[in-house]
Amino acid sequence: SKKINPSFSNRGKSLEDELNESNEFYLSRSIAVIHKKPVPIQVVNVNYPSRSAAKITEAYFRTPSTTDFNGVWNGKYIDFEAKETKSTTSFPLQNIHAHQVEHMKSVSAQGGIAFLIIKFISLDRYFLSPYDIFKDYWDRMTKGGRKSITLSEFETTSIEIKPGFMPRLDYLKIVSNFYEIADVNNERQE
Amino acid sequence: SKKINPSFSNRGKSLEDELNESNEFYLSRSIAVIHKKPVPIQVVNVNYPSRSAAKITEAYFRTPSTTDFNGVWNGKYIDFEAKETKSTTSFPLQNIHAHQVEHMKSVSAQGGIAFLIIKFISLDRYFLSPYDIFKDYWDRMTKGGRKSITLSEFETTSIEIKPGFMPRLDYLKIVSNFYEIADVNNERQE
Ligand SMILES: [Mg+2]
Ligand SMILES: [Mg+2]
Repeated sequence: SKKINPSFSNRGKSLEDELNESNEFYLSRSIAVIHKKPVPIQVVNVNYPSRSAAKITEAYFRTPSTTDFNGVWNGKYIDFEAKETKSTTSFPLQNIHAHQVEHMKSVSAQGGIAFLIIKFISLDRYFLSPYDIFKDYWDRMTKGGRKSITLSEFETTSIEIKPGFMPRLDYLKIVSNFYEIADVNNERQE
Repeated sequence: SKKINPSFSNRGKSLEDELNESNEFYLSRSIAVIHKKPVPIQVVNVNYPSRSAAKITEAYFRTPSTTDFNGVWNGKYIDFEAKETKSTTSFPLQNIHAHQVEHMKSVSAQGGIAFLIIKFISLDRYFLSPYDIFKDYWDRMTKGGRKSITLSEFETTSIEIKPGFMPRLDYLKIVSNFYEIADVNNERQE
């Protein structure tokens, strides 16, 4: 089968690229300022050749202590982790580090908006899981329960992001709807 | 001359270390969640020796596109750049990249709190310069004026951070005072 118009296809793009593109769109329209954090690297050795850029010759990847993306939208602090899975049935929780969950908890407690974006690569489906919902599955695991979140659990308790064009992944629209509803509920309780 | 009680001395500590320590204090007391971003590095070559950690054998430092530190405090987005200078009379603006200033402008427009922390190493003095104040000096330079901010300009238009103990640099206290006053002024105008 011949591939039709590959320039309009997003197949093969990583979730990180899709989110970076979406964030560039948000920034260019003054909608939000959200960036991917650099990967933490421990630099051990650097050469300084004359008249050229410093060259790192020995370095190691470090475990991230926070999440992938953060920034500001509409006066609100946004913080999220993005993960892909090849599984077609569930998302393995071993992909998330305990200190990242701890970080999201601290962010929530501080009044920030924390969530996960999960991509099921083979299904081309994306879900946004607010920290308050995600943590129930995390707690289930730490209490000895299943070590993953099933696709049908995402379908019923998370919000699906339907990919589009400019921005590719309009996750802030979902955040907006979700937290607007949360705000209304809070006001009712007051 | 003999050094007395070096464990209580902060001399020789980098501004980054002092801020990391202050941020650890804030985190441990649930006051704020603010982290240094990793240095952006472009990885070119990685070796994967069996049974040991991946070793980066060629990589280069990249120019940061944002600022050093960001996070959330009391529901507010915090974003700042930290810089040291050996000068005893002025802070050279060449230490700041134009895209970092652009970033702070975008953050401010989005309702975040953006500022710089400048340390005069030899004087052991620290200043917090809110973006709205800093940008006047930046604009002066881009219009052909002086390429630095003088110490006396910091003394009159920025806020001095007096170093202490736990946290070493209580910059959020200054942010709190500064933006509380700003809030009161906004309310008066409404
Ligand atoms: Mg990730
Ligand atoms: Mg810096």
